[in-house]
Amino acid sequence: MTDASSRWARREDLALLTDFYELTMMHGYWRSGRQQMTASFEYFFRELPTHTGFAVAAGLEQLLDLVENLRFTDDDLAYLTSLGTFGEEFIDHLRGFKPTVSIDAAPEGTVVFPNEPILRVEGPLAEAQLLETAVLNALNYPTLIATKSARIRLAADGDRVMEFGLRRAQGPDGGLSGSRAAYIGGADATSNVLAGKLFGIPVAGTHAHSWVMSFDDEITAFRAYADIYPDNCLLLVDTYDTLTSGLPNALQVFKELRERRPGVRAAIRLDSGDLARLSKAAYALFTQAGFHEPLIVASNELDEDLIADLKRQGARINAWGVGTHLITSSSWPALGGVYKLSAAREDARGRAAPGDADEAGSGAFGEEAAGVGATAAESAAATAAGLAAGLTAGAPPEVGAWEPRIKLSSNPAKMTDPGRKRVIRYRDFRGRPIGDVLYCADEEPQSGPQISYVGRSDLSFQVALEGAVQAEDLLEPMMREGRRVAPAPSIAEVRSRAREQVASLPEELRRLRNPEIYHVGLSPKLAELKTDLIRHAPGVLH
Amino acid sequence: MTDASSRWARREDLALLTDFYELTMMHGYWRSGRQQMTASFEYFFRELPTHTGFAVAAGLEQLLDLVENLRFTDDDLAYLTSLGTFGEEFIDHLRGFKPTVSIDAAPEGTVVFPNEPILRVEGPLAEAQLLETAVLNALNYPTLIATKSARIRLAADGDRVMEFGLRRAQGPDGGLSGSRAAYIGGADATSNVLAGKLFGIPVAGTHAHSWVMSFDDEITAFRAYADIYPDNCLLLVDTYDTLTSGLPNALQVFKELRERRPGVRAAIRLDSGDLARLSKAAYALFTQAGFHEPLIVASNELDEDLIADLKRQGARINAWGVGTHLITSSSWPALGGVYKLSAAREDARGRAAPGDADEAGSGAFGEEAAGVGATAAESAAATAAGLAAGLTAGAPPEVGAWEPRIKLSSNPAKMTDPGRKRVIRYRDFRGRPIGDVLYCADEEPQSGPQISYVGRSDLSFQVALEGAVQAEDLLEPMMREGRRVAPAPSIAEVRSRAREQVASLPEELRRLRNPEIYHVGLSPKLAELKTDLIRHAPGVLH
Repeated sequence: MTDASSRWARREDLALLTDFYELTMMHGYWRSGRQQMTASFEYFFRELPTHTGFAVAAGLEQLLDLVENLRFTDDDLAYLTSLGTFGEEFIDHLRGFKPTVSIDAAPEGTVVFPNEPILRVEGPLAEAQLLETAVLNALNYPTLIATKSARIRLAADGDRVMEFGLRRAQGPDGGLSGSRAAYIGGADATSNVLAGKLFGIPVAGTHAHSWVMSFDDEITAFRAYADIYPDNCLLLVDTYDTLTSGLPNALQVFKELRERRPGVRAAIRLDSGDLARLSKAAYALFTQAGFHEPLIVASNELDEDLIADLKRQGARINAWGVGTHLITSSSWPALGGVYKLSAAREDARGRAAPGDADEAGSGAFGEEAAGVGATAAESAAATAAGLAAGLTAGAPPEVGAWEPRIKLSSNPAKMTDPGRKRVIRYRDFRGRPIGDVLYCADEEPQSGPQISYVGRSDLSFQVALEGAVQAEDLLEPMMREGRRVAPAPSIAEVRSRAREQVASLPEELRRLRNPEIYHVGLSPKLAELKTDLIRHAPGVLH
Repeated sequence: MTDASSRWARREDLALLTDFYELTMMHGYWRSGRQQMTASFEYFFRELPTHTGFAVAAGLEQLLDLVENLRFTDDDLAYLTSLGTFGEEFIDHLRGFKPTVSIDAAPEGTVVFPNEPILRVEGPLAEAQLLETAVLNALNYPTLIATKSARIRLAADGDRVMEFGLRRAQGPDGGLSGSRAAYIGGADATSNVLAGKLFGIPVAGTHAHSWVMSFDDEITAFRAYADIYPDNCLLLVDTYDTLTSGLPNALQVFKELRERRPGVRAAIRLDSGDLARLSKAAYALFTQAGFHEPLIVASNELDEDLIADLKRQGARINAWGVGTHLITSSSWPALGGVYKLSAAREDARGRAAPGDADEAGSGAFGEEAAGVGATAAESAAATAAGLAAGLTAGAPPEVGAWEPRIKLSSNPAKMTDPGRKRVIRYRDFRGRPIGDVLYCADEEPQSGPQISYVGRSDLSFQVALEGAVQAEDLLEPMMREGRRVAPAPSIAEVRSRAREQVASLPEELRRLRNPEIYHVGLSPKLAELKTDLIRHAPGVLH
C-alpha cells in the first residue's frame, strides 16, 4: 500500500465520497440530454430508533461545507477515467463542475420526526443526484448521535455528561462527527481532543488504569497525580479493588491534599463493579471524612436506560462518562434516512441535446428504442409522471412546470409523498409542538386552532389537530446557486437550539420508553394528489 | 463555524485524535520523571460479537501509517496551550516529539480470537500511552467489519457480495475504512468511489429509483439505461411494481437489447418485496424467454442470517448488495478492544529528573507525599509490581528488568494477563488452527503433539490440546524505533490472507450460529505468574 493510498479522508477528496451509481446515473443523464432537467429531492427518515420519541437534526453544517467546496480534482478524474465507464467528454464535463444547487433545511438542533422532509435539494438533475450519498452520509449518523445524546441528557437529569467514545467509534470520523453531534444533543464535554480543537467542544479526562499500574503501588500513583493536578484531581479507584484499596487510598490522598488546599473537592471515577452500591459507599466514606458533595464520576457501558435505572436506585453519581453506546448508538446504529426525488421540471431549454452529440449518438440503440417506446409506453399505461400532469387540468406538462413524482411500494409506509412541499409545524399556546403538516408548495397553510390533516397510513380520511396557535416553516433557505445564504451558527448556538427544542416537547414525547407518536400528516390537497398518483399507477386496480 | 473548523479529519491533524486523558497522563509522566520508563502495552478484545466464532484482524496498515507520521503541528500546540492544563515546557517537549515505539502485531487478514494479544506496543511510557486511543480507534472498527464481511461471505457461499454501506456509515471515514475492511473480509466490490480510488477496491453500482422516476415512464427509463450501458445493463425493477411493471418492462428491454447484442445477459436488481419469491419469478420469466443464468442482484436490509435463509429457501439470487448491516455491524456495532499495560521497565537512565525540574518542583506536595507514602504503602500491602519482583528470586527489580503488571477485577474474565508474552498458534496435521497459547516472553514454547495449557477462567488446573503438529508466532515485528520494518502488503495480499485463514478454520468455528469456542489459554508458567500476582494483590485473602 502506498503512502497516498493509506491516508484517511481529506476534504479535498470528498467529491468521490459517493456511491458509484450516482456517477453512472449522472453520466446517463448527461448522455441522454437530461442533466439539465431540474429536480427536487427530499431527505427524510421513516423510523425513529426503538423507544425514541423525537430526533435532533445534525450534520447540516458539514454537508453545506462539503457541497460549497465540491470539485473534482485531476486526481479524481484520472481515477474515474481508469474505470473505463466514462468517455473523455464526460470527464471534461466533470472537470468544469461547480455546485449550483439550492438547499432548504431544518437548521441543526431542530427537533424532527419521521416522514417529513428535513432537507430539500433542488437543481440540475445530475448534480442533485450526485449529492445523494453525501447528503445521506452527512446527515444520517450525526442526527442519530445527537438524538441519542439528547436521550442520555434526559436520563442524566441535570448531571454532567461526558462523551468518551473515540476508542469505540466507527473510524476516526465516527469519533469526530460523533463528538460534535453528541455535544449538539446535550453532552457537556468530549474526551476527543481533535474534536475539541476543530469544533470548540470542551475536552475532559483524567487518567486510566495504566497510570496506576505504571507506579509501584496505587497510593504512590494517586499522590503523583494529586501533585501534578492539585486543582483538578480526579482519581480512578478500581485498578485493584475499589472498596479495599482504591477508595481508602483516594481518601488518604485527598486528606493530604486538603492540608495544602483547604476546601478541595474530592473526586473519583468508578469504572467497574456495581455503580449504585459503590457510589453510595464512596459518598459515605468521603462525606464522613468531611468532604462535602464529592464528585463521583461513573463510566462502563452506560446508556440512557442504565443511567435512569441507577438514578432510580439512588446512586450517588453526579457525572457520567458515556462511550460506546453514545458514539455508535449501539441499540440502533444506523438512521435509515433516504433521499427521494419528489418532483422534476423540464428546463427552460427543454430537453437539450446531450453535452456531446457524438458520444451520445454512439449508442444507436437510443434512437431505435425511442421508436419502440411509443408502443411499449402504452402497455406501461399511465404512469405517475403522466398522471401528475393530468392533475393540472389534463394538459400535458408545460416546460417549466414542476411535475410531482412518486415511488410506489407494496408497503404503504414506504410510498413517497409526491411533489414539492412546505412543512408547517404547529404549536399550542405553551409553545409545545403538537403536529407537523406537509403541504403542497403552492398551497396556503391552514391557521389554527383546528387543523385538518390526513394520516400517512390511511389516505381515506381526515383527522383534526386541535389547539394550534402558532405555525412555523420547518425548512429554511440554506444555499442558493451553490453558495450559502444563511449565516453558519456557532456550535454553542446549535446546542442551545437543541436544548430549547427538546425542552419544549410535550413530556410524553420525552419519555425514554414507549413514548407517544408525534403527528406528521399530509394536507388534504397533498393527500388527494398522492391518492390520484397511486390510483393510476402500474399494478393498482383502477 | 469557520471554514477550518468544519472540515473532516485530515491526516496531518491526527496527533490530536486521542482522548484528553492520554495527554494529561503523558504530561503527568513527564512531570514526575517517568516518561522514559519503558512500557509494554497489549491490544486485545475480550468478546466476539454474538454467534461469531472468529475475528479477522484489520486496521493495522492505517495505524502504522498514523504512528510513523505522528507529529504535533504548531496549530495543535497552540490549541493545547489554550486549554491551560499544560506548561510551556511540556508544549516544547511535544514540539520535538517523534515516534520511537516498537510494534509487533498479527498481520492484517489474520484470524484472531478473544483474550490474546493482537498487537504489542513497546517504548517510552508516555509515548506508548499517547497511542492508546489511536490504536483502539484504528483497530476496533476495521476488525469488526472485516469479521462481519467474512461471515456474509460464508453465508453467500460463493456468490458475489457488494458492499453498499456508505450512506448508512457512521461518518465519512466509517464509510472509507469500513469499505476497506469489508473488502479484506471478503466483499468483492464497494459502491464507495473514494474507497475505490484510495484503496484500489473494485467499485460497483448501476442506478437508483430516481433514474426511473426522472423519466416519464419505466420502460423509457430502462431503454435509456440500456442504450448508454449496453454491455453492463442492470435494471432496478421495483420503482412501481416488480411483478406487473418492473419485470415485464425489463424483459422487453432485454429482448430489444438481445436483437443488437446476441447473448446479452439479463440482469436485474430487486430492492423490496419478498426476495425469495420475486427472484424465483424473475428467474422463471427470463429463462422462459431464453435468457440463461440471468443475473439477479438483491439488496434491502440484508445480513448473513437473511442471506443464509433466502438461500435455504432456494432464492434465485446470485449477487448480494449489503449496506447498513455490513458497514455498521448493526447487531454488534462496537468491538470492545482494550489496550492494557502488561509490563514496565525502568530505563537504563533510571528515574531521570523530570524534563523540567522547576516545573515539576512547583507542586511541593510531591516531596511531602513521598514521605507519607512510606507508611501508607504498607497498608496497601504488597502490590502487583512488588510481587512480580518477588517472583524473580525475591530480589528487588533491577534497573532494566521487565516487571509484569496486572489489572485486577472482581470479574475474573476482566483481569489482565501479566507480563510480556509470546502467542503461539498450534495447527493440526491438516493445517487447521486448534488452539493459541500465551507464553511468557522468555519461555520456550512447547512443541506437539500434546500441549498443556491453563484456561483463563479457572487458573487452578491444566488441560491438554491434542494433535498439534505445527506452531507459529502470531505476532510479527512491524515497527522498530518508530519506523516500519515489515513491507506493507497490498490490499489484495491482505484479502487473500484473510480468505485462506478463514478457509483453514475448522467447520465448527465457521458456523453462523452458536459456533464452537476456540481454545486460547495460558502456559503453565504464565498461569503461575498470574496466580501469584492475584494472590498477593490488595483485597485478596492471603
